[in-house]
Amino acid sequence: MNYNKLAHECLTRADELAACTELPGILKRTFMSDAMQQAHQKVRGYMQSAGMQVRVDALGNMIGRLPGKGPKIFLTGSHLDTVPDAGKYDGMLGVLIGIAAAQAISANQLNFHFDTIGFSDEEGVRYKMPYLGSLAVAGLFKEEYLSRVDEKGVTMADAIKNFVNPADFQSAAYNFSEVTGFAEVHIEQGPVLEAQNLALGAVTGLVGQSRIKLFYRGLASHAGTTPMAGRRDAFAALAELSVFLEKYAHSIPHLVATIGMAQVRPGGANVIPGEVYFSLDIRHGEQAVLDEATSVILAQAEFIARHRNLKLEIETKEAQAVVKCNSLLVNKMSLAMEKQGYGKFELASGAGHDTAILSKVTPTAMLFIRSPGGISHNPIETVNVDDVAAAIEVFVSFLKSL
Amino acid sequence: MNYNKLAHECLTRADELAACTELPGILKRTFMSDAMQQAHQKVRGYMQSAGMQVRVDALGNMIGRLPGKGPKIFLTGSHLDTVPDAGKYDGMLGVLIGIAAAQAISANQLNFHFDTIGFSDEEGVRYKMPYLGSLAVAGLFKEEYLSRVDEKGVTMADAIKNFVNPADFQSAAYNFSEVTGFAEVHIEQGPVLEAQNLALGAVTGLVGQSRIKLFYRGLASHAGTTPMAGRRDAFAALAELSVFLEKYAHSIPHLVATIGMAQVRPGGANVIPGEVYFSLDIRHGEQAVLDEATSVILAQAEFIARHRNLKLEIETKEAQAVVKCNSLLVNKMSLAMEKQGYGKFELASGAGHDTAILSKVTPTAMLFIRSPGGISHNPIETVNVDDVAAAIEVFVSFLKSL
Repeated sequence: MNYNKLAHECLTRADELAACTELPGILKRTFMSDAMQQAHQKVRGYMQSAGMQVRVDALGNMIGRLPGKGPKIFLTGSHLDTVPDAGKYDGMLGVLIGIAAAQAISANQLNFHFDTIGFSDEEGVRYKMPYLGSLAVAGLFKEEYLSRVDEKGVTMADAIKNFVNPADFQSAAYNFSEVTGFAEVHIEQGPVLEAQNLALGAVTGLVGQSRIKLFYRGLASHAGTTPMAGRRDAFAALAELSVFLEKYAHSIPHLVATIGMAQVRPGGANVIPGEVYFSLDIRHGEQAVLDEATSVILAQAEFIARHRNLKLEIETKEAQAVVKCNSLLVNKMSLAMEKQGYGKFELASGAGHDTAILSKVTPTAMLFIRSPGGISHNPIETVNVDDVAAAIEVFVSFLKSL
Repeated sequence: MNYNKLAHECLTRADELAACTELPGILKRTFMSDAMQQAHQKVRGYMQSAGMQVRVDALGNMIGRLPGKGPKIFLTGSHLDTVPDAGKYDGMLGVLIGIAAAQAISANQLNFHFDTIGFSDEEGVRYKMPYLGSLAVAGLFKEEYLSRVDEKGVTMADAIKNFVNPADFQSAAYNFSEVTGFAEVHIEQGPVLEAQNLALGAVTGLVGQSRIKLFYRGLASHAGTTPMAGRRDAFAALAELSVFLEKYAHSIPHLVATIGMAQVRPGGANVIPGEVYFSLDIRHGEQAVLDEATSVILAQAEFIARHRNLKLEIETKEAQAVVKCNSLLVNKMSLAMEKQGYGKFELASGAGHDTAILSKVTPTAMLFIRSPGGISHNPIETVNVDDVAAAIEVFVSFLKSL
């Protein structure tokens, strides 16, 4: 099989899909948009030419089935929607590789029906809620979501009506007693594989996340007339926390911790900051490590407030639990990588994916493809054609091993 | 002399002046405003009842002269304008204490004419340029300033026309061969005297200041998928600099250093900051210490950029030189404090004052009055009436010692 030819075809198709956009010159394709209708037309064509049976479910997920010996079903897929000003591969490439695998395998060869799903929404741009497509497939979509409104006041139910019948949303759910698993192919969106000089990695799970927004409150005063001793500088407290956070995260393997947002108030160059509003983002692939890290960092934040005579106030604290992929499926993915000569390498995903939702209802695995420069959610996002060929080859080998 | 009675009168007058405002319920009185005209009416009355001869110069400074034996002149004064949402004492109290001193002394007692000046602008709110009044008195006002415009597009020349004739601005300058010095009474606007449990302090000079605005530029990337190693986090760099800055400033007596403004970009909670724009404010009363501190801090900022693979970019770098008061006059102020039983205490001013301008053309001194809580530029700014009585008493003693 000429995987290099299939890979080139995937990249050509990614270019074609990138032309289906809401904004000329910039890729933006959200849930149930006209641009999504155009993308569906393209994807339908690719699926049909791969010998797949195509349907669109009640939440606008496009599903192509390569019939196998049955009756069990194995799923792959990723999302067809994008962030604003997106790259061409985040999501779409996983769908295109599912189709390419079907081309490589052809009908009635596998012991199961092989469904490739193009999810209608993972990014959550239009309704400020991610994973709409995979929630429906997983049977976890709730009727109340249909009444959410977008920025123009259009309800989700009305948006769906342009495609399909929203009242049928329950019909989008698979019967998971018939499904043996879900495996998603996706670009890494990070620099780890590139740093390891590897094309591919098998994903062991998705990191859990603590998302906290908080304040240090001290006392704003004159930068010239207030001596250093006795200052209650909220920014200096945050700086101390940032230095701790960074050192601590470096000391725990695979922990990442970030202060991405900080608003310094009042913000005058000649005024000691009386208040700072900031975010903490803490992630790890093991729940126990994440929980421990979160409590250590918050304890340090509190300690800094106390010794500086400030107030620490937590505004919001959200948690996203660690998601574990299925170790048997992950192992099969690793073995396929090894067998095809790409070496065995496992890593956790630092970002969320449709796999997070499917993991609630079926065994999952993921295959990551190297992201040059680690760049994603950006029009300069790219992939190497050789890495895409490797991914198709490994994914076909994985499917045949099931 | 009943200094306590004079002090109470000063505070009543401060209340009356606070009612002369551009904004109901909030004190704001800017250069050449109607509120300033109202304040002039009040101050003219106070001056006249103290036996002073009153005039308004060509830049709107109100000047009351207590005639003495002459022909030399000694000056006091402070500003009658305010910041927006100001307190009642910053500036005004110095003018009122000059008038109170005149009341306590009465005409033809001093060996010199004693002029109390209510400067028309020190805060620089209306024309984004401070010290307009004292620049004119010092003979340092430049004709080109007259063409500056305020937020409503009114030129300074047109604003002055409502009061006096702007073409005469040179006439506002004193002949400094006739002037033996300038002494300003002002609230401290900081916490030092309060911490020392002292009513008054003699000011040795005004700190010099380095005002720098700069950028750290790194690389914005995904907070979940980018491992700690290899991040180019601009905020983490600023935090490291802040911790250094604070420790360094603590280690050098009387040095103050502040990061008052920091804008973190892009500012998403899940994005590693790629850029931070921030300010440095560094002040000290000795020029050599200030220059050394500025270069040490900038060298450290550059070191941090290098070891983190970031770019440090200096946008603006302004310097304000240290101003030294006249040691003979400062000593006379200290002796007057000691003589009247308030103890001798000297400090540098961390903020700018009209004295900074007058120091360029005549010997100067300042007397600071304790600021409860160190609070200024705030409607809750206050003074103790006993401290005001002490200030009048010491200032009168000082004038008599000249």
